[in-house]
Amino acid sequence: MIALDHLRHVNVEAARTARARYRAGTVEPTSGIAPGFTQANMIVLPRDWAFDFLLYAQRNPRACPVLDVSDPGSHTTLLAPGADLRKDLPLYRVWRDGKLAEETTDATAAWGEHPDLVSFLIGCSFTFETPMVEAGIEIRHITDRSNVPMYLTNKACRPAGRLRGNMVVSMRPIPASRVADAATISGRFPAVHGAPVHVGAPEEIGIKDLAKPEFGDPVRIEPGEIPVFWACGVTPQAAVMASGVPFAITHAPGHMFITNIPDSAYHA
Amino acid sequence: MIALDHLRHVNVEAARTARARYRAGTVEPTSGIAPGFTQANMIVLPRDWAFDFLLYAQRNPRACPVLDVSDPGSHTTLLAPGADLRKDLPLYRVWRDGKLAEETTDATAAWGEHPDLVSFLIGCSFTFETPMVEAGIEIRHITDRSNVPMYLTNKACRPAGRLRGNMVVSMRPIPASRVADAATISGRFPAVHGAPVHVGAPEEIGIKDLAKPEFGDPVRIEPGEIPVFWACGVTPQAAVMASGVPFAITHAPGHMFITNIPDSAYHA
Repeated sequence: MIALDHLRHVNVEAARTARARYRAGTVEPTSGIAPGFTQANMIVLPRDWAFDFLLYAQRNPRACPVLDVSDPGSHTTLLAPGADLRKDLPLYRVWRDGKLAEETTDATAAWGEHPDLVSFLIGCSFTFETPMVEAGIEIRHITDRSNVPMYLTNKACRPAGRLRGNMVVSMRPIPASRVADAATISGRFPAVHGAPVHVGAPEEIGIKDLAKPEFGDPVRIEPGEIPVFWACGVTPQAAVMASGVPFAITHAPGHMFITNIPDSAYHA
Repeated sequence: MIALDHLRHVNVEAARTARARYRAGTVEPTSGIAPGFTQANMIVLPRDWAFDFLLYAQRNPRACPVLDVSDPGSHTTLLAPGADLRKDLPLYRVWRDGKLAEETTDATAAWGEHPDLVSFLIGCSFTFETPMVEAGIEIRHITDRSNVPMYLTNKACRPAGRLRGNMVVSMRPIPASRVADAATISGRFPAVHGAPVHVGAPEEIGIKDLAKPEFGDPVRIEPGEIPVFWACGVTPQAAVMASGVPFAITHAPGHMFITNIPDSAYHA
C-alpha cells in the first residue's frame, strides 16, 4: 500500500483530463497518455469469485500485482478519488461464461447486473515506460502509435480455487545494447510487473509468431533488437477464458485505467 | 511469489529439525532459531472469512505481507513440504468470538472443528534479524534470550469487510549510530515487514510504557539506544480481537512457523 496521504499535493490534472475524455467516449490505447501517472488493468467479479481471484493474484504476483481492491458494490477507488470505474476507462470487455460477450465504452449497464461486484486494479507495465523513455530507450508501440503486442504463453499460472490459466506477456523490442538497462529500470517497479520474465527465444514460452499477438497490435522489430517479454495484466482475462468464469468485466487490452498516483510512488 | 524451483538444492535440515522439535512438544520463542530460514506468522480462518482477511492483508501490506495461502481444508504449505501446520509451530492460540480461548502446542483438535480452514502465512521480522546481526547490530531479545516486545499502537489499519483493528509493532532498541543501518537492512526485505514504521517517540503511536508490551517480553534499553518499531505479524490477532472474529487459530506471538525458504529469497 502506498502512502496516499503523502500524495495530496500532486497535480493530477493530466490524469483527470484523460479520464474525462474517456468518460465522454474517446477510445484509444493509453500507452503514452498522462505520462508519469500509474496505469492499471482492471477485472471486476461478483463477490463469490473475489477470494479465488485475490488468491490467484497473490499466487501470481508478477502477472497480477494488486494495486487496489474496491469494496463489494462500490465503483470507486482510493487511487483516483472522484473517478467512476464504470465509465472512466476508454474501453471495456464484458465476459459471460468465459467468452467475450461485448466491448463497450461504458460498463454501467453490465455493472448493474450484479449488486456485489468487486473491482481489482492491477499494475500495468505502461507505468515503467516513462522512465525507460527518459533513459533513451525507444518504446516502439509509442513511436508507432499502436497498441502494445501481447501474447498468451505456455507458462501455467499457479491455480487458485476455480481459477487457472496461462500467463499473458507484453513484448517490447529493445536494442541488444539496452536490454540490461530495460531490465534494471523495470525491475525497480515490482508493483507494475517489474523486470522481464523472458528475453529473446519467444518459442520457449510458446509464442509461434511475433507478428500475430493474441491481444493488441504487432510491432516492427528492427535488426539488432531483441523481443523482451514482461508479465501482463491481461493474464486475468486469460484466466476468465480458461476457467469459464460466469461473469466478469475487464478493461480492453491496452485500454487502461489512469490513476492519480505518480509512477514514482511504486518505485521500490 | 518466490521462485520455489530455484530452491531445490537448499539444505533445509536446520528448519526441519526445529519443526520436528516443536511437533514433539518443545515450546520456545523462535527468534534466533534456524538462522537464515524465513519465519512466518500464521492465522487460520474459516473459508467464509478468508476473502475479508486476504483483502485486509492486501490493504495493510506493511503489517500483513502474505507469503503463502493454503487451500481450504489443507494444512500444508509450499514453503515447507512435509510440514503440518497443525503441529509444527511451538505454540498456538485458539480464538473464539474475538477472545483468546486457549493456548496449545498442538492445534489438531481445534483444526478439526472446521472443514474449510484457510491458513495464511505472513512474513516475520525475525527474518531480517540475521542480516542485522551479521552487520554487527545487536538484537537485544536474542542476546537476552527473551521474546521480542510487541505493542498495540493507535494506528488504525485500513479495514476490509468485517475486519478492522490497529497495527501491532515489534520493538528493537538500536544504538543511535546504527538506526540508519537497521532501517536500510530491514528495508531490503519488504516481504517480511521491511523498514521501520516508526523510530523513537513511542508516545506518538500510543505506546505509554515500553516496559509493558501487550505481547512478548520487555527488553533492556541502554543509554544511547533508540526504540525502533517495525510493523508486526501479530496485527491479525489484534484484528481478531477488535472484530470479534468467531473462530481463528494463530501462532502465539513470537512462536513462529519456520519455513524451508532462505531469507535471501525475500531480499528485494
